[in-house]
Amino acid sequence: MKGELLYEGKAKRVYQAEDKPGQLVLAYKDDVTAFNGEKKDTLPGKARLNNAISSHVFQELHERGIRTHFIKKLSATEQLVHQSDIIPLEVVVRNTAAGSMVRRLGIEPKTALTPPVIELFYKNDVLGDPLINDDHALLLSDVMYEDLNAIKAQALEVNRQLIDLFTASGIELVDFKLEFGRVASGNIVLADEISPDTCRLWDIETRENLDKDVYRQGTGDLLEVYEKLMTRLEAAL
Amino acid sequence: MKGELLYEGKAKRVYQAEDKPGQLVLAYKDDVTAFNGEKKDTLPGKARLNNAISSHVFQELHERGIRTHFIKKLSATEQLVHQSDIIPLEVVVRNTAAGSMVRRLGIEPKTALTPPVIELFYKNDVLGDPLINDDHALLLSDVMYEDLNAIKAQALEVNRQLIDLFTASGIELVDFKLEFGRVASGNIVLADEISPDTCRLWDIETRENLDKDVYRQGTGDLLEVYEKLMTRLEAAL
Repeated sequence: MKGELLYEGKAKRVYQAEDKPGQLVLAYKDDVTAFNGEKKDTLPGKARLNNAISSHVFQELHERGIRTHFIKKLSATEQLVHQSDIIPLEVVVRNTAAGSMVRRLGIEPKTALTPPVIELFYKNDVLGDPLINDDHALLLSDVMYEDLNAIKAQALEVNRQLIDLFTASGIELVDFKLEFGRVASGNIVLADEISPDTCRLWDIETRENLDKDVYRQGTGDLLEVYEKLMTRLEAAL
Repeated sequence: MKGELLYEGKAKRVYQAEDKPGQLVLAYKDDVTAFNGEKKDTLPGKARLNNAISSHVFQELHERGIRTHFIKKLSATEQLVHQSDIIPLEVVVRNTAAGSMVRRLGIEPKTALTPPVIELFYKNDVLGDPLINDDHALLLSDVMYEDLNAIKAQALEVNRQLIDLFTASGIELVDFKLEFGRVASGNIVLADEISPDTCRLWDIETRENLDKDVYRQGTGDLLEVYEKLMTRLEAAL
């Protein structure tokens, strides 16, 4: 099924799909990293969990009318997606103040953000993925003003759908990171993954972390937490 | 003329104007600082130059239809302005890539920025005046969405007028920082100062600095450079 290896990231390998031009295989890795790669481990089972959770979330978003790159889950650790040129922006949506935003802006942790706050970061490891504004995004990427507005509108719609999805499992969607890509037709679609690696998820009652913060902060067993999250998402089906 | 001292900043003291409710006296200091106060000196004569240059620029902007807090120059080092509640945003307009933007985003120095790039920074010394986006500005200040758009439109109009003003003296307006305040009527007006402390200005031909970068970088005598700038602005009258 897999053809040429096109790209290896921190958490996934990307292959050309064999005999399927315009399609890619995303193969999740068992690696986990934090703090721009400074903390790093291999946790056998993580690839399976991230692939299962992200496939589930993308399938849900597809059924709710969001245009995504996702085609289908191929195996325990792989999924098939449409090829796209990834736009070099990380689009973060925040419903509750946490993480870097709290440190940068001195906002009280757990402050409700209404309306949600959107942040753009320039995907560039050497520069440390800096926060940018809209003018910077237009300067640094090939997106036009209208594209940027469409991306933000789509990010807010994804937020509404994800809140709906996670709330059904008793989970608070604190914040999350999206990436978008341009497919052959020129359309911009939701790409990359949506998983506890890229979302901050709290139990609605206890506000305990169900995401990578347990690894960043060393407060829990990542595999146990991701497994619990997957079980809770499946229970709500 | 001066009443109660209301505020002392790095470069100015702000007094209530005696017997003139709603008006303030800005008294420039001979102090110069850089790198968030890490580099610091007292240069006798700087207050006179900054007051002269900023008064000149605000008078010009007033005559060109920009609403500002400026009323008049009172003395060598003082000016009279309308009292306003300063909005805690530094509004930076960039026509040419230089300074922090180059370091943050890896842009080639001296790249022409067309259209100009606007940046917002949250005025907060403890947090190091962090770069923010529009969503953050709405969250952290009492400005509304419409106010923010009006502030940006006014910043771009100030940019057009300043380019016109400085070009007549053979000076390239690389970038500059503005602050805005809300006067008693609720209107938002241009406030603070516009001087070589707050602008990056280059000789159009040689691209030598005519601004505080000579102090930051230790490449020239600040007083000589500010005096030269003032002389060139006056020669174009």
